[in-house]
Amino acid sequence: MNYRIAVLPGDGIGAEVVPQALRVLDAVAAKAGITFEYTYALIGGAAIDATGHPLPPETLELCRNSDAVLLGAIGGPKWDTLPSHLRPEVAALLPLRKELGLYANIRPCHLFPALADASTLKREVLEGVDMVVIRELTGGLYFGEKKRETLEDGSERAVDTLVYSTPEVERIVRLACETAKNRRGQVCSVDKANVLESSRLWRETALKVAEAYPEITMSHMYVDNAAMQLVRNPRQFDVLVTENMFGDILTDQASMLSGSLGMLASASIGGEVALYEPAHGSAPDIAGQNKANPLATILSVAMMLEYSFKRVEEARAIEAAVDRVLNQGYRTGDIMEAGKTLVNTVEMTDCVINAL
Amino acid sequence: MNYRIAVLPGDGIGAEVVPQALRVLDAVAAKAGITFEYTYALIGGAAIDATGHPLPPETLELCRNSDAVLLGAIGGPKWDTLPSHLRPEVAALLPLRKELGLYANIRPCHLFPALADASTLKREVLEGVDMVVIRELTGGLYFGEKKRETLEDGSERAVDTLVYSTPEVERIVRLACETAKNRRGQVCSVDKANVLESSRLWRETALKVAEAYPEITMSHMYVDNAAMQLVRNPRQFDVLVTENMFGDILTDQASMLSGSLGMLASASIGGEVALYEPAHGSAPDIAGQNKANPLATILSVAMMLEYSFKRVEEARAIEAAVDRVLNQGYRTGDIMEAGKTLVNTVEMTDCVINAL
Ligand SMILES: CC(C)[C@H](C(=O)O)[C@@H](O)C(=O)O
Ligand SMILES: CC(C)[C@H](C(=O)O)[C@@H](O)C(=O)O
Repeated sequence: MNYRIAVLPGDGIGAEVVPQALRVLDAVAAKAGITFEYTYALIGGAAIDATGHPLPPETLELCRNSDAVLLGAIGGPKWDTLPSHLRPEVAALLPLRKELGLYANIRPCHLFPALADASTLKREVLEGVDMVVIRELTGGLYFGEKKRETLEDGSERAVDTLVYSTPEVERIVRLACETAKNRRGQVCSVDKANVLESSRLWRETALKVAEAYPEITMSHMYVDNAAMQLVRNPRQFDVLVTENMFGDILTDQASMLSGSLGMLASASIGGEVALYEPAHGSAPDIAGQNKANPLATILSVAMMLEYSFKRVEEARAIEAAVDRVLNQGYRTGDIMEAGKTLVNTVEMTDCVINAL
Repeated sequence: MNYRIAVLPGDGIGAEVVPQALRVLDAVAAKAGITFEYTYALIGGAAIDATGHPLPPETLELCRNSDAVLLGAIGGPKWDTLPSHLRPEVAALLPLRKELGLYANIRPCHLFPALADASTLKREVLEGVDMVVIRELTGGLYFGEKKRETLEDGSERAVDTLVYSTPEVERIVRLACETAKNRRGQVCSVDKANVLESSRLWRETALKVAEAYPEITMSHMYVDNAAMQLVRNPRQFDVLVTENMFGDILTDQASMLSGSLGMLASASIGGEVALYEPAHGSAPDIAGQNKANPLATILSVAMMLEYSFKRVEEARAIEAAVDRVLNQGYRTGDIMEAGKTLVNTVEMTDCVINAL
């Protein structure tokens, strides 16, 4: 088998962790009799500098013609003062999601036992945490109509619109149910149905979708309570599904359960081709220093193997290798603790490849 | 001095904790030479049962003619199946906020040292946490236009509208700056300016307001990052200010920093008369059993003394009494730990009154 991967390193540490993750992918490929063909393309600030736009048409075209996309990270202070239609995060990420039809962002979130002490939450709260957060990614406030108007008295008025339709909710809730089938069978749908009309539609639709899944237990939680429960008792969650903006907030919050954002992989799926990326940002402060934690990106290629290429065994092998390396005490700076061995980006990757 | 207080116990444990908080208020009043005149009124499920509506006009009228309002808690399973325009939380709370012009919800959030171990966060993360979260309370998605339409193919489409105008943002950010003046001088304004037009207006306006406060350091944070930072390093915040929906989520999340929702007081201000209420709900599971934690409501009357009656000394005395009682080891069920003394609602109040 030969797969074509679009490789978009992006900015900051993205350019460092992506090549490392590809080394891991190659190590797995050799054993599994797969070959990968990598085509690099520009995105984000790097693309602005080279072409004037953070998402050049060639990049989008390449993604469309690939079997999977690996993205590093986007943005940095250099481009922070650009007008919003050129800002690398927004003007690249949002159209990329929309154009590729990536309506679902999937973030598995579990504790690596070796990192239990790296989190700010108590070990006994984290032990056993194993959830998947599924965020709707192409609807809601992100893509609704926006406007700004000047009122008679000279003050301004800004409007954003939160829109959801039945089919948009159906497909994402169905995905949550399918995901839960292979897990503990529990879906918690998060909304604000006591206040928002879109949340009432969300809840009604979720209830209807659930009828087709008698083996799934579906619960419904208000978003304010969910934000609290993620700190109070995160173990209660198996699959959590929610709309775009709530998902943006809750996934970042949930990332703290893994001890570090440097450990979190994500997949954005729904269209012909899926996109994989670490949950962390471009970390300009440590960029170019071979210090970044490559594990989130390595775990993202594991997700790619599982979701895009149905190579579950190889995906599990990478995850097990990461676990082993952590148990052996290797740590990049972001997850460093007294008594552990500090390694750099390349060394950490070497460790994972050796453990494979 | 004689003050008229509208007392709205509401549902569940609201009816138990409110009278206890009034006992504390009376204890303070006697010493300070103030008298309070309490007038009870119906709200929430109790009001639905008696009058058919969760916010009877007499209740609103009473609030308008009082010097302050003390609210218990609203809602319960009995009324959960009502259509949303009658649901006690929404159909009472939201119009009450709007009608009384309560545009700012203020929740102080600090660690009671005696409760450090009751939280799921590590003691060293919580130590020194002392912040005030200020939530805009009468704008945004809560009060924007909502609609639902059926599309040609029979599916539905729901819309909520997020609206903010310059003066709405100005007044709340100004309040945050004024609050920070008496504290550590730091305001963190939370928005999603990379995606939302309303957040861009929010940020521009906040920057302008800040110009009038050279002594304040204002920072800006995206809401996803804020949700993460509240878990990662909550000590960094002094005054946090944000829009209605983000505030709903972040205040509940921040409540976990105090160890228990049973400890959190809140004030909603902005109009002629302010409203004080515990941050917790009606807790139907323990209602009527003299088990509820009255401290959040007791701390709410402390806020009333400070904000509505400028009796800062008396407010501090109540807070100090609560601290003392916790240090003495008295605990209601929600904050109970091994080795402490379990007390009921009335006993806990007795302890506070003795400590005063
Ligand atoms: C950069 C920003 C537009 C983006 C989002 O809000 O979706 C980011 O926070 C994310 O979660 O991928
Ligand atoms: C009950 C609900 C409408 C309310 C809100 O969302 O404002 C509550 O969660 C709160 O925070 O007071």
